[in-house]
Amino acid sequence: MFYLVGLGLGDASDITVKGLDIVKKSKRVYLEAYTSILTVGKEALETFYGRKLILADRDMVEQCSDELLADAEIDDIALLVVGDPLGATTHTDLIIRAVEKNIKYKVIHNASIMNAIGCCGLQLYNFGETVSIVFWEETWQPDSFYDKICINKKLGMHTLCLLDIKMKEQTMENLMKGRKTYENPRFMTVAQACQQLMEIIQKKQEQGEDLCLRDETVCIGVARVGSDEQHIIAATLKQLTSVDMGAPLHSLVIPGKTHPIETDMLRHFALDDSVKAILQRL
Amino acid sequence: MFYLVGLGLGDASDITVKGLDIVKKSKRVYLEAYTSILTVGKEALETFYGRKLILADRDMVEQCSDELLADAEIDDIALLVVGDPLGATTHTDLIIRAVEKNIKYKVIHNASIMNAIGCCGLQLYNFGETVSIVFWEETWQPDSFYDKICINKKLGMHTLCLLDIKMKEQTMENLMKGRKTYENPRFMTVAQACQQLMEIIQKKQEQGEDLCLRDETVCIGVARVGSDEQHIIAATLKQLTSVDMGAPLHSLVIPGKTHPIETDMLRHFALDDSVKAILQRL
Repeated sequence: MFYLVGLGLGDASDITVKGLDIVKKSKRVYLEAYTSILTVGKEALETFYGRKLILADRDMVEQCSDELLADAEIDDIALLVVGDPLGATTHTDLIIRAVEKNIKYKVIHNASIMNAIGCCGLQLYNFGETVSIVFWEETWQPDSFYDKICINKKLGMHTLCLLDIKMKEQTMENLMKGRKTYENPRFMTVAQACQQLMEIIQKKQEQGEDLCLRDETVCIGVARVGSDEQHIIAATLKQLTSVDMGAPLHSLVIPGKTHPIETDMLRHFALDDSVKAILQRL
Repeated sequence: MFYLVGLGLGDASDITVKGLDIVKKSKRVYLEAYTSILTVGKEALETFYGRKLILADRDMVEQCSDELLADAEIDDIALLVVGDPLGATTHTDLIIRAVEKNIKYKVIHNASIMNAIGCCGLQLYNFGETVSIVFWEETWQPDSFYDKICINKKLGMHTLCLLDIKMKEQTMENLMKGRKTYENPRFMTVAQACQQLMEIIQKKQEQGEDLCLRDETVCIGVARVGSDEQHIIAATLKQLTSVDMGAPLHSLVIPGKTHPIETDMLRHFALDDSVKAILQRL
């Protein structure tokens, strides 16, 4: 059996009891280490589970599935994924490959940012399409996520913005020279995401476009959701560009139309009285 | 501390290790028993946790929060919720009341249908607004969810349809007479939901409206997601009206624009070759 086991969002103890049993009994256990991170590393997980884990990077999961799935017809093989295993297309692809090899699979679900974002007080069923905000580079500054936010807002829906993660980046020089040397991981902060959004807004304003977001729009920055160090701040987009939310991972929520219970909850996360006053008027 | 502990979607062992520790150490543990169900009942949970649970119905959670939160400033009190604790507004409301009493709270997240629905092969970030399909009564047959499905479809987004649950229904007679006698719980099946959708489509067609859904649209019925008895079927809306998905809970997914990987995965759940042929043409 090939198991995809979700680890949830916080630390080692966020695995389910069912998931832990599978980790303990499986012959090989891989830890997927490129779509997300917990607040603890591989060593802490190994200590908690009482066994060794094999690190699986993007190349391995996407290109070496034969190695990963080897003997899964007869043995139990597990792939551990931060959050829920089906949050990323890459794992659906892996399931398809398993099915084609006649390997049985089972998914052990867990919390992911896609549902745990309810912690900010906004109701899950009022969220529209989820968007990703990527790190801008000098020559590549995509802003299509802004349009998606506007579509959601026009429908009254909230938008969850997932912020970029660069786990195994190569510099252009190392890439050209074929050197497998990687930069340190980078995680986009709420402040960086808001900064990029402010630049988009300014550009749209200069072009005379109608804006669905303004500097004064109250947004919600969240950090380390589901962990003991979870941090949530409701503040204006402009304020959030200078708020330090601490260690990764961060996400950003752009509210649509808010229900009174949602506004009540947001008030508890307000950065200051000016934000509370804006929320009062929603 | 007031803990809201998610139980996930399958059986007793889908609680997280962190959640189980809290259940074991808390002074009082309530089991919320009206927004969803697991494949096992209260007794199985009590055996697994090794302790007694107090059943909390809607009246208790919504109207007797003082009782529920009593002494939570000094003792650990836990409320167990199927899925993730923040899937329903009623629990956000409870948190607000706790905060107003200066009671600290912590949410232990878990899988819910809102993220575990990824099991059907459609990508979570391509889902639009989630809709609820309620049991029609003779004089009350709301169909606004159809319009929301169409809005999602026009945007290329998938729609998760949550199907009605009636846990503690009273007949009109018992309600009028103030008798606290309740009917057996009812859970809407995929077949019932599709039947209601077909009736809406027929009505819209008679009124000459453009249709976003047809009898031949491939939809996905899911049952008991996250449990060992999980069942997924991709079939036309018409076919699904006569498919028996077994015991509750059921949900329905209306796909929007599908990516090739999504279509590949759906093919594995196809009811028959005619469905595979339709998927091939998407």
